[in-house]
Amino acid sequence: MARRFLVIHGPNLNMLGKREVGIYGGKSIERINDEVAAEAATLEVEIEFFQSNSEGELVGAVQGCRQRTDGIVLNAGAYTHYSIALRDAIAAAEVPTVEVHISNIYKRESFRHTSVIAPVCIGQICGLGSLGYVLALRALLEERLDPWLP
Amino acid sequence: MARRFLVIHGPNLNMLGKREVGIYGGKSIERINDEVAAEAATLEVEIEFFQSNSEGELVGAVQGCRQRTDGIVLNAGAYTHYSIALRDAIAAAEVPTVEVHISNIYKRESFRHTSVIAPVCIGQICGLGSLGYVLALRALLEERLDPWLP
Amino acid sequence: MARRFLVIHGPNLNMLGKREVGIYGGKSIERINDEVAAEAATLEVEIEFFQSNSEGELVGAVQGCRQRTDGIVLNAGAYTHYSIALRDAIAAAEVPTVEVHISNIYKRESFRHTSVIAPVCIGQICGLGSLGYVLALRALLEERLDPWLP
Amino acid sequence: MARRFLVIHGPNLNMLGKREVGIYGGKSIERINDEVAAEAATLEVEIEFFQSNSEGELVGAVQGCRQRTDGIVLNAGAYTHYSIALRDAIAAAEVPTVEVHISNIYKRESFRHTSVIAPVCIGQICGLGSLGYVLALRALLEERLDPWLP
Amino acid sequence: MARRFLVIHGPNLNMLGKREVGIYGGKSIERINDEVAAEAATLEVEIEFFQSNSEGELVGAVQGCRQRTDGIVLNAGAYTHYSIALRDAIAAAEVPTVEVHISNIYKRESFRHTSVIAPVCIGQICGLGSLGYVLALRALLEERLDPWLP
Amino acid sequence: MARRFLVIHGPNLNMLGKREVGIYGGKSIERINDEVAAEAATLEVEIEFFQSNSEGELVGAVQGCRQRTDGIVLNAGAYTHYSIALRDAIAAAEVPTVEVHISNIYKRESFRHTSVIAPVCIGQICGLGSLGYVLALRALLEERLDPWLP
Amino acid sequence: MARRFLVIHGPNLNMLGKREVGIYGGKSIERINDEVAAEAATLEVEIEFFQSNSEGELVGAVQGCRQRTDGIVLNAGAYTHYSIALRDAIAAAEVPTVEVHISNIYKRESFRHTSVIAPVCIGQICGLGSLGYVLALRALLEERLDPWLP
Amino acid sequence: MARRFLVIHGPNLNMLGKREVGIYGGKSIERINDEVAAEAATLEVEIEFFQSNSEGELVGAVQGCRQRTDGIVLNAGAYTHYSIALRDAIAAAEVPTVEVHISNIYKRESFRHTSVIAPVCIGQICGLGSLGYVLALRALLEERLDPWLP
Amino acid sequence: MARRFLVIHGPNLNMLGKREVGIYGGKSIERINDEVAAEAATLEVEIEFFQSNSEGELVGAVQGCRQRTDGIVLNAGAYTHYSIALRDAIAAAEVPTVEVHISNIYKRESFRHTSVIAPVCIGQICGLGSLGYVLALRALLEERLDPWLP
Amino acid sequence: MARRFLVIHGPNLNMLGKREVGIYGGKSIERINDEVAAEAATLEVEIEFFQSNSEGELVGAVQGCRQRTDGIVLNAGAYTHYSIALRDAIAAAEVPTVEVHISNIYKRESFRHTSVIAPVCIGQICGLGSLGYVLALRALLEERLDPWLP
Amino acid sequence: MARRFLVIHGPNLNMLGKREVGIYGGKSIERINDEVAAEAATLEVEIEFFQSNSEGELVGAVQGCRQRTDGIVLNAGAYTHYSIALRDAIAAAEVPTVEVHISNIYKRESFRHTSVIAPVCIGQICGLGSLGYVLALRALLEERLDPWLP
Amino acid sequence: MARRFLVIHGPNLNMLGKREVGIYGGKSIERINDEVAAEAATLEVEIEFFQSNSEGELVGAVQGCRQRTDGIVLNAGAYTHYSIALRDAIAAAEVPTVEVHISNIYKRESFRHTSVIAPVCIGQICGLGSLGYVLALRALLEERLDPWLP
Repeated sequence: MARRFLVIHGPNLNMLGKREVGIYGGKSIERINDEVAAEAATLEVEIEFFQSNSEGELVGAVQGCRQRTDGIVLNAGAYTHYSIALRDAIAAAEVPTVEVHISNIYKRESFRHTSVIAPVCIGQICGLGSLGYVLALRALLEERLDPWLP
Repeated sequence: MARRFLVIHGPNLNMLGKREVGIYGGKSIERINDEVAAEAATLEVEIEFFQSNSEGELVGAVQGCRQRTDGIVLNAGAYTHYSIALRDAIAAAEVPTVEVHISNIYKRESFRHTSVIAPVCIGQICGLGSLGYVLALRALLEERLDPWLP
Repeated sequence: MARRFLVIHGPNLNMLGKREVGIYGGKSIERINDEVAAEAATLEVEIEFFQSNSEGELVGAVQGCRQRTDGIVLNAGAYTHYSIALRDAIAAAEVPTVEVHISNIYKRESFRHTSVIAPVCIGQICGLGSLGYVLALRALLEERLDPWLP
Repeated sequence: MARRFLVIHGPNLNMLGKREVGIYGGKSIERINDEVAAEAATLEVEIEFFQSNSEGELVGAVQGCRQRTDGIVLNAGAYTHYSIALRDAIAAAEVPTVEVHISNIYKRESFRHTSVIAPVCIGQICGLGSLGYVLALRALLEERLDPWLP
Repeated sequence: MARRFLVIHGPNLNMLGKREVGIYGGKSIERINDEVAAEAATLEVEIEFFQSNSEGELVGAVQGCRQRTDGIVLNAGAYTHYSIALRDAIAAAEVPTVEVHISNIYKRESFRHTSVIAPVCIGQICGLGSLGYVLALRALLEERLDPWLP
Repeated sequence: MARRFLVIHGPNLNMLGKREVGIYGGKSIERINDEVAAEAATLEVEIEFFQSNSEGELVGAVQGCRQRTDGIVLNAGAYTHYSIALRDAIAAAEVPTVEVHISNIYKRESFRHTSVIAPVCIGQICGLGSLGYVLALRALLEERLDPWLP
Repeated sequence: MARRFLVIHGPNLNMLGKREVGIYGGKSIERINDEVAAEAATLEVEIEFFQSNSEGELVGAVQGCRQRTDGIVLNAGAYTHYSIALRDAIAAAEVPTVEVHISNIYKRESFRHTSVIAPVCIGQICGLGSLGYVLALRALLEERLDPWLP
Repeated sequence: MARRFLVIHGPNLNMLGKREVGIYGGKSIERINDEVAAEAATLEVEIEFFQSNSEGELVGAVQGCRQRTDGIVLNAGAYTHYSIALRDAIAAAEVPTVEVHISNIYKRESFRHTSVIAPVCIGQICGLGSLGYVLALRALLEERLDPWLP
Repeated sequence: MARRFLVIHGPNLNMLGKREVGIYGGKSIERINDEVAAEAATLEVEIEFFQSNSEGELVGAVQGCRQRTDGIVLNAGAYTHYSIALRDAIAAAEVPTVEVHISNIYKRESFRHTSVIAPVCIGQICGLGSLGYVLALRALLEERLDPWLP
Repeated sequence: MARRFLVIHGPNLNMLGKREVGIYGGKSIERINDEVAAEAATLEVEIEFFQSNSEGELVGAVQGCRQRTDGIVLNAGAYTHYSIALRDAIAAAEVPTVEVHISNIYKRESFRHTSVIAPVCIGQICGLGSLGYVLALRALLEERLDPWLP
Repeated sequence: MARRFLVIHGPNLNMLGKREVGIYGGKSIERINDEVAAEAATLEVEIEFFQSNSEGELVGAVQGCRQRTDGIVLNAGAYTHYSIALRDAIAAAEVPTVEVHISNIYKRESFRHTSVIAPVCIGQICGLGSLGYVLALRALLEERLDPWLP
Repeated sequence: MARRFLVIHGPNLNMLGKREVGIYGGKSIERINDEVAAEAATLEVEIEFFQSNSEGELVGAVQGCRQRTDGIVLNAGAYTHYSIALRDAIAAAEVPTVEVHISNIYKRESFRHTSVIAPVCIGQICGLGSLGYVLALRALLEERLDPWLP
């Protein structure tokens, strides 16, 4: 049976392509999702997408992955920096999660240098634009097939 | 003409596979380099490797890339956290650099949560084991072909 | 007329019994609510329950207690540590509130050692598992009958 | 065509007039909105009002102003102090925003002295009670007519 | 055989009822002990009481519980905030301990917000007046009968 | 009898219009005073102006308002951030004071984010250019006529 | 009836005259007590002296002053900097207390710059050698006769 | 020849008796000076007084004491907390200086707990109202006659 | 005449061998004292032992060494981290003191990384178990015979 | 036409040669000015000198250089560390300024390690005694003739 | 077979005996090595010595001990305070290491109070001059023969 | 005999003229050395130059100056901010050293505002481009001829 993955976009990512293109690039969220879907097709995995501006809904989406999804690609947007609720949801879901950021958060304001969710994710990809989502998908799939830690 | 990339491993990475395998996994540096070389062959790019425990030699290696190399995959090891000299070398070299960490540095001691080189790299991949090097190589290549920021 | 109390569970508490049982124990939220309801029956008070992952809904639930509820037993989950909105709601509601945590938050990550809601609650019970809810209910009832401060 | 403005009230502002009147005064949110509407009529601008306790809904309301509204008067309540999501929404919306606080936040608890949204607003008015909303409206209108920075 | 518990009062608690009644209420230490003794009689457990202003004597009292007492109810007073010696004694004694504070320490000066003993106690009850001691006794008894963590 | 107000400009505000116009706009202090005087005429209040680079003279000017002036509009310039002497003068004068800043100080260097005088003023207006002075005057007048706190 | 005062010396003050005379001067504690006793005789007040190295005994001595002593001259020695227990004792005793230090603590190591007891004393005299005790006695007596705050 | 001393009052002390009498008491600066002058007459020393709101003038007054004055009683008011210029003047003047504060600065806002001049004064008296000036004068005189440090 | 040394054990060291053997090892205090006494016999020096949980008694024991003891081996236990009183006693005693810790305090909680007594001791030995006491004794003896600093 | 420069000395520099010669050397301000004047004569530039203890006067002196002076040599003395007013004056004047300190401020108290004016000066010379003024003058002249940044 | 140990000296230790003898004593590195070699002969263990100013070489020396050396005596000099690379090398080598410092680092500048290598060493000896190396050697040998932790 | 001086350039200074010319200017290290050599010829002193990217080699170069060189002009580049090893080398060498920075480090990232070597140098020149080296050379020469401190 095919692996199933969920891509979760946090607050303001629905504004991609319109908002601050010098920081986030000019691709819309739909175009990014299309690119990821194309990669998923190539890799023969199922993929779904979710976006919300609401912390509570994002918590719910992560919780819903428990025992139903093989991995999460998560760009938590601004919640990255303070949503302990989201962190707890990831820990509770027990689904491998890769944290993605389109921009290099370490080049920006200092409050963006801290991710409260990073310690409960398996890894982080940032600064590589929409490609980050695609690479995260591959990482999740490979990690399932060939875990790098014994 | 084929693109040329350099993979740079910092201090103690020559101990991979022997050292703390619960943190860094069981692959030796040679095996990781082989994996990256295989990917490079697939992508039809040239690849070279360098490892040193010496901050000064790492600075020199990065400087040497200036106007000669298309991208750097850099795992600076412990120097990540304090080598401003290395940071300045990356800025001086003006070669796109992706920062890689085998382990998820945000799960570990707090002094590993800060990277002084991150602000001068284009992005960071961490926690994905040796796969991180391979993904970084792809990111550098794609970034050259299709820059995500206008 | 019987006293009326509300038990409020914050984010991820709907995962109790499934999630990290080494930290939170193996009881589900339903079983905890049953235990509290049994105690309420013994004490001859009315009791209601509310759970939400949404900060806004929790704020609304607390506001709704104003002039309608005699006391709140509140486990705000992760919002304990940053939801000033929830704090303001408690202050605005002017209903005696006891803060409860199932685990001993002072044994865990340092960001869990700070409660932004504690200064507007009458007291805090933590680390006593589901018993904390029952004790909080008793405290609220006694405090109504025999205030300990003149 | 008449200018259009939106007044946004954040969490717990629906409790105005009931809640802590020594801090926030005795006017209800409806009465404040009436005062602002009267001023808007005098100034011949269109005005709308929005209140929510939900961070996600407030983010959505700000996003919705993009290319549709000439200015925002925003009292973000407690979210002022931590909602980076709201901050990002304001930056994404690219609509001039004036931050308003009824009370003088610098006289209160130290955690209220920091506004994470201030750097993306054009200015801040605080401590002037409900008059702050009226003055903010005037400032937005004048700023449109006669920008003070070249 | 009946369970045996010890209630330990730290410095200045011998002044209860006389001292700052707006903070600590008007009950004397003797009256509080009587209330706890009555509860102990109801629960059919043995109870003893100890008060000292001396850090060293408190350390000794805790040490003396080792393998002789089933649980400690501890209000360490001001030592709560700096007595690492007392913390080490609790860890050395290996007797379940519940920390109690009469007042809500989180409403008071910031130096009272930190408890150096909390991480070695099983839980904390604060702000509930003398009732806190009674609830702590019940918690210790129940924890013995029905541990909430597996 | 007409109300009397004083507008106080702190250090370097005599350089307005010449100095860093990208930050402070192109209006001279004379032109700003004219605008405020025009508004004062409309409001039928008396207005005076004072500028000094000297902390001691500013302290003296504020002291001189005691029992002689109905309100102060104060742009303390750089002294905003460290002059406790000025803060004490405002507290001693017991005259309602509105703090004004031409630029949005929260967009600038972090040392400009703290105002030591804010806690003794009734409110603050910043980022609205010279309009801030006019709005402050209106606020002072209305506050006298219709205090928003009971 | 004559006023009664107590002079309390904290830890290591029994070593005065022997210990670090460059810091504390060459007078023994007995000689200092004699000087204070002489002043007391002149002022026609009763005076007693107490010294202890034990925090608990010092707490007890302060508690014992309640309703029996008109004022305390307290040199708490090293406990000045961390004994919250002593601070609480002073607050509980409700006896006017003047804090004295022989040396100028602000010229010494930074940990000596903080006094946890200062906020509960009426004032502090430091750096004036043994004269500080005499002046403190006079201050206590005058404060009784002619309180400077209404 | 008679000793000569100078009493220096810093900013806002000219408002004594009018300003915040709950903090500073009801005596005017003239009355305090009279009390000190009376004591000086008793002690047969010459005394002068100086008050200024200007940091520069206070620096000048202290400098002027060099080789002309036997001691300074200095209440630097708000400058206590930040005037390094005043600190340097005291060090340059090489005249024994006693720092005086009418109120107990350690009971007040935390920024008043630090004195930048304390390390260059011989001692500090605070919280004893106007009596502090008198005691400081006596201390300076005795220190001259009988230095307590060898 | 034979040299005389004192070994001082601080709070909870009487629990050695019983308490947390994974941290402190399985030897009792008696056995450690026997080992040190055997070494002392070999070195032909006199040795005494003292243990107390009381800060005041430890201060007294150190003071008592003045001019009577040639060196102190001091394991201050938890007081290491906050007892400035003990630090002052060491400085006052003027007896060479070597600080010993059985466990490596730098591997443990961060509050154990600071020793307030270290700056007044001649050196520190930690992490070497009970051997640390023996080595400290030798160091004190050699330091007497052959001081390493001129 | 000859270049014109101004040398500005801040507070207490009028005490040079008298004050703390171990820190500042034994030359008076007049002698230093003579040395600088001699160098100016050699370089064929006009030079003026100004000294004040008053922050406001120093601000005025800097402002007065605007469009009239080719460069400022500024030793701001103690104001270096906190006078944001002076910083703003330098920015407003738009005259190249070199910051000079006679002593090496980085060898002294930590509060002297921060210069709030350094970011608006072109450079800093410290620790080189009176020679620093002469070198600064040369630097200003050369910078005018041959700017080192394009 | 005899045990083998390596003594590693970090940067500037080649200057011993010449450099700052008031801090480090007058013995050269050769003389210290001779003393340690003599002790090694007595203990019948093999000993080698290594000194380098280069962080990379020190990392290499530590790595080289893996599976070849029974223990390391390491004085890392200044690298003690920041070389995470050296710390990682010690962890990777898995050879018991005792950290030695000739001077008491806790008596010196605050940046010398932190050792980044301490948490990966078994223990630390400091302040005992060259004797520290000898004692460390003994500790390593005994630890091998009779581990103090089970 | 002619004085001998050494100019030391730290990491990345070999990239001068190529690297970030907006920060460091367009001159190569060779051209800067030529300018300094020309000045040295004028002053009739011997001059040598050294550059390295290696901390260890820089430490060695500084050590090598001991008793052989009359002064060091040191631009430590990035090592300025963390190389305590270099600091210790300067202290050990006991050769007067002037710290030089081409750019104004106080205008740049905050981690460049701290120099760990400044406290052991005689002074610092920064922000004056390559002229800084020339001025430093003059300062060293004059300091030899006419020390400004007695």
